[in-house]
Amino acid sequence: MDFFNYKNGELFCEGVPAAKIAAEVGTACYVYSKATLLHHYRQVADSFKELNPTVCYSVKSNGNINLCKVLAEAGCGFDVTSGGELFRALAAGGDPKKMIYAGVGKTDDEIRDAINVGIAAFNIESEAEIENIDRIAGEMGKKAIGALRVNPDVDAKTHAKTTTGRKGNKFGVDIDRAETFFETYRNLKNLHVGGIHIHIGSPVYEVQPYIDAVAKVIELIDTLTGRGHKIEWLDLGGGFAVNYKTPDQALPVTEHAKALVPMLKGKPYKIALEPGRYISGNSGILLTKVLYRKVSGPKNFVIVDAGMNDLIRPTLYESYHHVWPVKPDAKNLFPDRNADRLPVDGEVVDVVGPICESGDYLAKDRSLPKTQRGDLLAVFTAGAYGFAMSSNYNNRPRIAEVLVDGSTYKIIRRRETYEDLVAAERI
Amino acid sequence: MDFFNYKNGELFCEGVPAAKIAAEVGTACYVYSKATLLHHYRQVADSFKELNPTVCYSVKSNGNINLCKVLAEAGCGFDVTSGGELFRALAAGGDPKKMIYAGVGKTDDEIRDAINVGIAAFNIESEAEIENIDRIAGEMGKKAIGALRVNPDVDAKTHAKTTTGRKGNKFGVDIDRAETFFETYRNLKNLHVGGIHIHIGSPVYEVQPYIDAVAKVIELIDTLTGRGHKIEWLDLGGGFAVNYKTPDQALPVTEHAKALVPMLKGKPYKIALEPGRYISGNSGILLTKVLYRKVSGPKNFVIVDAGMNDLIRPTLYESYHHVWPVKPDAKNLFPDRNADRLPVDGEVVDVVGPICESGDYLAKDRSLPKTQRGDLLAVFTAGAYGFAMSSNYNNRPRIAEVLVDGSTYKIIRRRETYEDLVAAERI
Repeated sequence: MDFFNYKNGELFCEGVPAAKIAAEVGTACYVYSKATLLHHYRQVADSFKELNPTVCYSVKSNGNINLCKVLAEAGCGFDVTSGGELFRALAAGGDPKKMIYAGVGKTDDEIRDAINVGIAAFNIESEAEIENIDRIAGEMGKKAIGALRVNPDVDAKTHAKTTTGRKGNKFGVDIDRAETFFETYRNLKNLHVGGIHIHIGSPVYEVQPYIDAVAKVIELIDTLTGRGHKIEWLDLGGGFAVNYKTPDQALPVTEHAKALVPMLKGKPYKIALEPGRYISGNSGILLTKVLYRKVSGPKNFVIVDAGMNDLIRPTLYESYHHVWPVKPDAKNLFPDRNADRLPVDGEVVDVVGPICESGDYLAKDRSLPKTQRGDLLAVFTAGAYGFAMSSNYNNRPRIAEVLVDGSTYKIIRRRETYEDLVAAERI
Repeated sequence: MDFFNYKNGELFCEGVPAAKIAAEVGTACYVYSKATLLHHYRQVADSFKELNPTVCYSVKSNGNINLCKVLAEAGCGFDVTSGGELFRALAAGGDPKKMIYAGVGKTDDEIRDAINVGIAAFNIESEAEIENIDRIAGEMGKKAIGALRVNPDVDAKTHAKTTTGRKGNKFGVDIDRAETFFETYRNLKNLHVGGIHIHIGSPVYEVQPYIDAVAKVIELIDTLTGRGHKIEWLDLGGGFAVNYKTPDQALPVTEHAKALVPMLKGKPYKIALEPGRYISGNSGILLTKVLYRKVSGPKNFVIVDAGMNDLIRPTLYESYHHVWPVKPDAKNLFPDRNADRLPVDGEVVDVVGPICESGDYLAKDRSLPKTQRGDLLAVFTAGAYGFAMSSNYNNRPRIAEVLVDGSTYKIIRRRETYEDLVAAERI
């Protein structure tokens, strides 16, 4: 569900024609819909409301402070994974008491900053980290709070690079070692470990991996409780998938909630959630313009002004993003977006960027309506891990980000300049 | 060949201990050796000197203006692939008459800028681009100069994402269509197409693909000359590999020259070369510090403070980078770097970064000397496509770059701050 729709023959973001934004802001650019962002945040909060959860938006999926502000104002908390993300969440007006700090490589400075602002909890990934946080909190004369991230060893059935809940990956502590952990660190002076955290990967398209993980962790908490440990909260992580290919590819979060709420209702511990992609993913598109068309051997190429530096997911994860013209001809004006629907009088093309390597593409062997120089294309479901992973590769200034709210829009990140590229090198 | 060597039990960059830089600048950081950079530039220029070539350093491999300055002062030209790279090459004091502009997606603004500063030539990738440059030059009342990039359809035997000379990729024009091209565009008013360009990929470890490509293109030029076209220069591109795994993995450029110079000597056209990785690759290391150690299932993890946002090559291309402690114990102090040599009393580990995904690693299942928290590791051969591809993913400020010259060093790009991350979003 989102507020990007074709009306009067062209793509609108809420009440604003995408073509108007392209003309005024230039291409390529990211365009976000405020209503879509809020819809998904509220959908998460509402579906789990019987558990009264703390919803912590995963800043790494899209950390623009203007998007974070929208979410903070709606009552959302934040899941941060670095000092930079903590800085962003605070700059957006986020409440530290609703902030969770995750990540396997927290530096001493980052830990100090997080203790200083009084975050809700660290998600702790290893023995070495527990001891380090305890030591730092001691030096500061403060008490830190943490949850142990356990690795439930379930198969999230997602890309190898983004699965995180299997045995033998770098995240968390194997679930069968969790008990020993709590025993070992029962009496830390400066760190209170009162929660359990899981995160199985992203994007996850099925309910079953969550059910399996939650069942395992409930059993663990019962065991720990029996041994006299008080578990005060369970952080379920995030990873809920979004619709990249078809309108019903990903389960709405309501379906996940339907399975998980009954398992957790009435438990004597609080619940936290860390959705990122689910909130930001369908909230953004990448708008790009056709620069050239060319034929090479058996292939047709549509060369556009967005490259792998702007959206690296297709080449890094072999990710599918739906691509469609902003102003398709009448016979290709479909009400919904569906990878399985072939265009009428279309063609099979590679949509590629200007970067000097073969890995620079947005779509491969894709059936699209015919396009020509100057046509605008929308790359959908680009709100999560789009701008967040963008770089200056090939010395391309990072593109502008735009937030639409009803019939108006504003630039929420200006396009970088050439001088921006070198500013830190002027020594 | 490079000037990173172990002396007195620790790693030096030229005359400066790597540990001293780490202590003073912080980690992670990139450290470059000026002598190594110049050595490789001169080696390219010298090996081909019988052809009196124009050597154009490929800015995309590492565009720091302070490195470009070093090369410009030594007489090097520049291969640029974007307006940002043209800006860098000019800011570094490069001579526009030794600049070549390549890339499949040149925008109108970029073409105008390049014509305005009087670059040597555009490398032209398609019919649509030829016509566009001709049109723009006409509007400006100027004459543009170009070379046609032909696709010789040879197998460079490199990674699928970085091979560029096969049929059916987005680069260049199939060699069998080149003749038609020159016929069609014989009488353009505002664009003089006087050269031929090839670039088969990178990194290329063998001579044979170059020999095959050059043989094909010499034949093409002979045919074109027979039809009355005057070919004034041949741009051989770049792609020469460097030593990632073993000291003799890549042929020195002298070996490529030995094969290619006799083929090209005495030809009535000038020669250009576009080495990037060969000049910058072995000139840089990534210095990083061990934050934590952990065991997960059957795996040992060494968690360091550099991540895939700092060096994406391992996860994007499955690239191998040699990793070794800056201060190894005496029995692991080897004179050269060799992937095949096992450490004494070592261990097999994954060297991973702090980023929240399983794809964030620098080395997998790697035999290394045992390390502990606080130890420094050097990631070698990181000068090319290291910083150039770095991002702010997980909102990590980009790291500092340092240039060593003999017994001194200077910071040539300051470490980014949290405020840098959000500056363009303060609207």
